[in-house]
Amino acid sequence: MTRDAEATRQRLTDAAADEFSRYGIAGARVDRIAAASKSNKAQIYHYFGSKDQLFDAVMNDVVTRTAAAVPITVDALPEYAGRLFDAYENDPRIARLTIWYRLERPGDPARLATLSETLKDELDQIGAAQQSGTLPSHHRPVDLLNLVLHLSFLWAFVLPELEEKIAGTARAHRRRVVVDAVTALLR
Amino acid sequence: MTRDAEATRQRLTDAAADEFSRYGIAGARVDRIAAASKSNKAQIYHYFGSKDQLFDAVMNDVVTRTAAAVPITVDALPEYAGRLFDAYENDPRIARLTIWYRLERPGDPARLATLSETLKDELDQIGAAQQSGTLPSHHRPVDLLNLVLHLSFLWAFVLPELEEKIAGTARAHRRRVVVDAVTALLR
Repeated sequence: MTRDAEATRQRLTDAAADEFSRYGIAGARVDRIAAASKSNKAQIYHYFGSKDQLFDAVMNDVVTRTAAAVPITVDALPEYAGRLFDAYENDPRIARLTIWYRLERPGDPARLATLSETLKDELDQIGAAQQSGTLPSHHRPVDLLNLVLHLSFLWAFVLPELEEKIAGTARAHRRRVVVDAVTALLR
Repeated sequence: MTRDAEATRQRLTDAAADEFSRYGIAGARVDRIAAASKSNKAQIYHYFGSKDQLFDAVMNDVVTRTAAAVPITVDALPEYAGRLFDAYENDPRIARLTIWYRLERPGDPARLATLSETLKDELDQIGAAQQSGTLPSHHRPVDLLNLVLHLSFLWAFVLPELEEKIAGTARAHRRRVVVDAVTALLR
């Protein structure tokens, strides 16, 4: 891809990330993405093929960036959950895109090669750490990873009725709740 | 409401729960709900007012039924999480409706009186149990409740790429992961 084409692709993907994180896959409108990116629908379809493929491109970008910015640290899993929490706080689109993905694509065969590879690598590292005794082995690697990823999301989807009651809770406190919960799992 | 009107309302709410759990609020189509319930859009609007109000009615039903079927047991919080897990397994619509609600109504002022009352009662019970020493008090009541509710949802939203790796995991095992995680929080 030329540098211009890459810049255009990035501009479209950014606008699409905003739209999908707000409205989900079904709710997103390609014409709004076109307007926000000063593009047009024909150009978007030329670059990405379809709305679904555009969503895949957005998710792949998000996963690649998050995995690069927050590598797993199996000797410090609580802090890994804390750094994931930081990533979701710094860009709330990540958590929303991920949950739309789960809601709107249940049972879909794996489509995101980056995510599959990241998860496989994380599971391998957890398994190795359990073998060497760095991590306790009372959980299967897949259960432990699922718990850690899930807890890192704790504050991203609070019930509206509970939101009132946690309003004003400092970010540092919320982070500590996540880190402490993962610490408790490992005891 | 007459008995007939109540039966009609229930039939519409059931069809709406199917539709909303599958497609969310924005994605749901009132004409599909009308077709599935052998009704028509005019009747649905007559009973509920709008698509948003129909969703509120569905969520209120779900919350009321779940709260009645799964009362909190502050002297056995891990088992409470296990019974919530059971409720989501028995009717997967509950978890999906709840998460659409969170995604599509962030920052919305509390609308579901039943849910607000249930949460307030649960927080009061947790606070009292901490005072009497039945529950440890290293968490604020609101943090503990948030953690328990969140963990009960652990298996309802697994990343599609992780789903492959947990395929075939027995329900009893998945339940134990939830119960054990809450047990660990209380140590």
